Amino acid sequence: MDWRSQVYRPALVVQPERVKKNFNRMQEKALSSGVVFRPHFKTHQSAFVGEWFKSRGLEHITVSSVRMALYFASHGWKDITIAFPVNLREIEDIRDLSKRVQLNLLLLSGEAAEELNSRLDRKVGIWIKVDVGYGRTGIPWNEEDRIADLARTVDALPNLEFRGLLTHAGQTYHMHDREERAALFTQITEGLNRLRNHVLASGPKSCLLSVGDTPGTTAVPDFKGVDEVRPGNFVYFDAQQWHLGSCEEEDIAAAVACPVVAVHPQRSEIVVYGGAVHLSAQAEPHPRHAGVSMYGYAAACTPDGWDRIDPDSYIRSVSQEHGVARVSSELLERVKVGDLLCVIPVHSCLAVDLLDTAITTDSQLFSLDFS
Amino acid sequence: MDWRSQVYRPALVVQPERVKKNFNRMQEKALSSGVVFRPHFKTHQSAFVGEWFKSRGLEHITVSSVRMALYFASHGWKDITIAFPVNLREIEDIRDLSKRVQLNLLLLSGEAAEELNSRLDRKVGIWIKVDVGYGRTGIPWNEEDRIADLARTVDALPNLEFRGLLTHAGQTYHMHDREERAALFTQITEGLNRLRNHVLASGPKSCLLSVGDTPGTTAVPDFKGVDEVRPGNFVYFDAQQWHLGSCEEEDIAAAVACPVVAVHPQRSEIVVYGGAVHLSAQAEPHPRHAGVSMYGYAAACTPDGWDRIDPDSYIRSVSQEHGVARVSSELLERVKVGDLLCVIPVHSCLAVDLLDTAITTDSQLFSLDFS
Repeated sequence: MDWRSQVYRPALVVQPERVKKNFNRMQEKALSSGVVFRPHFKTHQSAFVGEWFKSRGLEHITVSSVRMALYFASHGWKDITIAFPVNLREIEDIRDLSKRVQLNLLLLSGEAAEELNSRLDRKVGIWIKVDVGYGRTGIPWNEEDRIADLARTVDALPNLEFRGLLTHAGQTYHMHDREERAALFTQITEGLNRLRNHVLASGPKSCLLSVGDTPGTTAVPDFKGVDEVRPGNFVYFDAQQWHLGSCEEEDIAAAVACPVVAVHPQRSEIVVYGGAVHLSAQAEPHPRHAGVSMYGYAAACTPDGWDRIDPDSYIRSVSQEHGVARVSSELLERVKVGDLLCVIPVHSCLAVDLLDTAITTDSQLFSLDFS
Repeated sequence: MDWRSQVYRPALVVQPERVKKNFNRMQEKALSSGVVFRPHFKTHQSAFVGEWFKSRGLEHITVSSVRMALYFASHGWKDITIAFPVNLREIEDIRDLSKRVQLNLLLLSGEAAEELNSRLDRKVGIWIKVDVGYGRTGIPWNEEDRIADLARTVDALPNLEFRGLLTHAGQTYHMHDREERAALFTQITEGLNRLRNHVLASGPKSCLLSVGDTPGTTAVPDFKGVDEVRPGNFVYFDAQQWHLGSCEEEDIAAAVACPVVAVHPQRSEIVVYGGAVHLSAQAEPHPRHAGVSMYGYAAACTPDGWDRIDPDSYIRSVSQEHGVARVSSELLERVKVGDLLCVIPVHSCLAVDLLDTAITTDSQLFSLDFS
């Protein structure tokens, strides 16, 4: 059956072969580097997709919320890191999780460590969130003593088991040079190793290093110098990663299939059911048209997925449910009201989170709703 | 009970008295103008909130998707306009709805009209979507003959009942002068009336006029010259509407309560659990700091709602689950990890769509999930 006949509303369409190839490539790099491979499941958020990876031997996963941890725990995953500073208001769910899986949490203050410890009765793994220059959150990595103090505090608390230092170098999302990203990866690895020595000198017997981010992990040939990698986006990629050079066009494994609801030939535009609540409102500068923002590329949907990207066909604006695509004359001629248009989103993680239904190109429907 | 003790994850917090006051004000203006009041329910998306309006005599509503229409139909609403160009791929649900409620749909082409007519066996009301300069979708209002032709086509089809011309002047979202918006409202009303005369001269016996948009409907003293108004955002308002002068600060009736997960005193920043998948990635230029984007205002949560807006406390960036608030020294001192921070979102409609749980300040929990 043609997958397109089963899409009525905006839905994620996934090319399984591309996903598996992306996964295998990253897994092999991790295994050959001798590090723990703990991919971030926030990108696909799907037990169905997770099974593909489980069958490849994957055991360790990362998620971005307690809710996502509960969902994957109920689908048989046994070792889960919530890569987000611990939300103490969800302590009941955290207690529940700590009894069911090997749970690993992030901390960045002694107060939160004490509070968390006092509310638990099972041991959880603890990573200290370190800020290596992204500036979102974490203890700045130049505050070596503060980090070592917290490591010692964690190490001494009975319900917390100190794991090491965890970081997300999100600044790579603004670095369009792959070599530059690789150099940053090396620089961060070296800095973290010095920091580890400082921590170990203060007491703890072990201190692992965990790093993330798809633009960085795709730029380096191996992961020497760290103990664990947590990329997420690499399973699907998207327009942003393609612009960054983290992937080839042929690696992009997910798009949003959107029903066409209006065609405006005079404007060379197509209006789709697919707006900010499906694609997200995250924009990217258009790589060829200065001053133009884009919310994804538009391409015809095909039985196998979607056509090649033509940069002249893109979503120029989104409102709540509407997406307005400016398209090439060739695409304009091919598409009519009632058809589907495939949108390669700017940021696949956000689109996946917003959508509730997905379908593979071999017509397997699966849910994206884990709430 | 203090509503704050019941929030564990990002949740919408609603001040019912403000919502009711906002509703009553707009309803009275509609009634005294003698027009049909058909508010857009996409803003609150909630049967619970809808009941407040039902008790005030409301009978006609607008929604933005077939799914939302199904949801409100199952909650007793009997006259529903889907203010989005008809999505022919959802024809089965549309057929179902046409048997249960007075359903009104939008069209902008004869081909879609013929196709829709052939798939229905009950009459639905049809509005022609007219573009009055916003440039999103609709037949441009200067194409008078095309509009009259479509009206005649619709009028002749047995399962379609021509209602009139419907428009959304979304360009008001870029007009910060209230007087200018009021003048545009008048100009559009006059133009639509000329267009109506042209349509009536071509055959149809009746042609109503329906207009929308909160920035426009809040700017005018009455709705003379049209037959129906469909504002939506006015029930909650948000930072964007406040910047536009569509409301006073005291009219803003909804915020997003976000757990605090990190405090960075040296950066004067607070990190909350509340990111692009809760607040949306829609940014606004900060009204006081040139070149700075903001994703909402940050304020302390109080038993009655939230503190007054201090423009120096705002969300400066969002990623998937993280929001980073730059805050005043006063707010910084008051907030610690484990507390809640209230975020007045840039665009409440998007935040509501993304969140799944809401709570009133008198601690009534309600769902935002209608899928």
